[in-house]
Amino acid sequence: MQPSFYAVVPAGGAGTRLWPLSRQDHPKFLHDLTGTGRTLIQATADRLLPLSDGLVVVTGDKHADAVAAQLDLDVSDLLTEPSPRDSMAAIGLAAALLAHRHPDQDVILGSFAADHVITDTDAFARAVRTAVAAATEDYVVTIGIRATAPSTAFGYIRMGDPLASGVGAHHVHGFTEKPDAATAEEYLATGAYRWNAGMFVVRARVLLDHLARLQPTLAAGLERIAAAWDTSERTAVLDREWPALTKIAIDHAIAEPVAAAGGVAVVPGEFDWDDVGDWQSLGDLLPAGLGDVRVLGEESDVLALDSPGALAVTGSGRRLVLLGVPDAVVVDTADAVLVTTRDQAQRVKEIVARLSDDDGGLT
Amino acid sequence: MQPSFYAVVPAGGAGTRLWPLSRQDHPKFLHDLTGTGRTLIQATADRLLPLSDGLVVVTGDKHADAVAAQLDLDVSDLLTEPSPRDSMAAIGLAAALLAHRHPDQDVILGSFAADHVITDTDAFARAVRTAVAAATEDYVVTIGIRATAPSTAFGYIRMGDPLASGVGAHHVHGFTEKPDAATAEEYLATGAYRWNAGMFVVRARVLLDHLARLQPTLAAGLERIAAAWDTSERTAVLDREWPALTKIAIDHAIAEPVAAAGGVAVVPGEFDWDDVGDWQSLGDLLPAGLGDVRVLGEESDVLALDSPGALAVTGSGRRLVLLGVPDAVVVDTADAVLVTTRDQAQRVKEIVARLSDDDGGLT
Repeated sequence: MQPSFYAVVPAGGAGTRLWPLSRQDHPKFLHDLTGTGRTLIQATADRLLPLSDGLVVVTGDKHADAVAAQLDLDVSDLLTEPSPRDSMAAIGLAAALLAHRHPDQDVILGSFAADHVITDTDAFARAVRTAVAAATEDYVVTIGIRATAPSTAFGYIRMGDPLASGVGAHHVHGFTEKPDAATAEEYLATGAYRWNAGMFVVRARVLLDHLARLQPTLAAGLERIAAAWDTSERTAVLDREWPALTKIAIDHAIAEPVAAAGGVAVVPGEFDWDDVGDWQSLGDLLPAGLGDVRVLGEESDVLALDSPGALAVTGSGRRLVLLGVPDAVVVDTADAVLVTTRDQAQRVKEIVARLSDDDGGLT
Repeated sequence: MQPSFYAVVPAGGAGTRLWPLSRQDHPKFLHDLTGTGRTLIQATADRLLPLSDGLVVVTGDKHADAVAAQLDLDVSDLLTEPSPRDSMAAIGLAAALLAHRHPDQDVILGSFAADHVITDTDAFARAVRTAVAAATEDYVVTIGIRATAPSTAFGYIRMGDPLASGVGAHHVHGFTEKPDAATAEEYLATGAYRWNAGMFVVRARVLLDHLARLQPTLAAGLERIAAAWDTSERTAVLDREWPALTKIAIDHAIAEPVAAAGGVAVVPGEFDWDDVGDWQSLGDLLPAGLGDVRVLGEESDVLALDSPGALAVTGSGRRLVLLGVPDAVVVDTADAVLVTTRDQAQRVKEIVARLSDDDGGLT
């Protein structure tokens, strides 16, 4: 039987380090951060739709309307979570529901974050197809991004020998948490480590079997929810079951223990990839304009003198003037203005933490 | 005869280095730049009214309404210029008109800019009274500010021996243009130089006589305008005479040539003084708040982390967040945001020059 491939896009996370553009009520994935005219979740869907037999988005209650407005999605393919229960619940729900809905298919699902930036869609498509092929060998397959720098912002995947089948994937020896700088340098020097972009491709049945074994309570809860989803019982069952679901990331629930048992494979992804984690990385993504200044938004709203390396984000229609501030980050929105520098940008979450006590909607 | 003292306040100049707060249509003197609740021209009037028998403001057509709204001024004391013809025309008009209106008085006038900041009003009052006394000896009297730094932003007055009368003023050996840094250091080292704040106190008759001798065309034009001012002919005469008035600063028209002939005296002013020429100097004027950050406007709108020495100017109700930007200058207005640093602040006029080609009201 030819497998069916469904793309699953968990759309959660506020992206607080991109404040004040990204907000709890309007997170990163709903924004066009690359100036292409497509938001991050739209670009994600654009990449996945040609590769898949269907696309399922899992998002929170308060973002469901915005996601529906941005994507041309059948309402049944938009799974709304009553509250965030971490990535295993979100992806597990999609897996259980796809298995329920397509009992006669060999369902393979691939999970891809809603807010990553990938420009080489051909190389991405090749990696996904390879991952799907490897998933038919019952591996949990991840795509490992070529590490181009000793980043301390990402977890790493330790890649082993190629699978015997010759499909183009490798054994995985293990996953690491975000390393310190020295460890990241060591990883990079070995050539055996790849960045973990949280992409997982796996047979629904394989995933659900791992889950039943490793997190039986969670698996049972998801199974009850999936069975009720397309019935009049959905709300009642969700209300009862959802808040009790084990809150755990797929990395800890599945990827790490299954890797330790030899059940995870990695496909080397040879495409540019960025999770646009903060203003620094967004600055690197955008093309340098006049005077080596990056602008997200209306270039004509920005006047910059002697500010090489600066990033200006317009958003309120006001004129933004930068004078003698190299590497500055200036983000203008309707109700807040952020002024910082590229190398301080990862500290923006400290600001959000300070504001969120009594923020009047600012965070 | 006891002299009458009239304060004359020429209110012109946009203060372009305080853009985007100061605009052509709403210049520096109309703003509360010190957070006291009074604009600069209001504070100027507050200082002068208790010292004088009357206050006359000379301003441009487009600022007359705003000045009238800010000051409790008799309409006859607001002299409106059809176009800017520099300080000699403005002050000369006031002198000629006061002489016309008060033919039986010994009119002494004192000219003080509308946009300077002086906090020690008692010391200022003492200096003005001394200057008025010296003016009764028919000197053109200036007040020389104690030079506390080798500033290159101000002209200097070279002070000589005390007047023989013992009134508390000194002879003036001459005026200098703004010096370079090395020259300013030399001036400061001698102790004989004082900053020229453009304050002149002089008998109206003495001023008009100097003017008739040194700038006869200008003097004659002003005399015709003053004669017609309080008649139905004012508009017709202004339309005819005003555009032809010699455009010259009082420094060049009167102060320098009269000083060369020994006719200028200086009263040492022992008060703090600032012309709030740029954001740097405004930053020095404002008290340091939490984290050594200066705020002009709503302190509760500003959140600053690790930004000592920074200046934040609120103006649109937006939250301003400064993160890791020491000595930054951030000015938020309804239609423009400026981001620069204290030591780049004097370059703001370059920005205004670039914007004013096609500014849509921004400058």
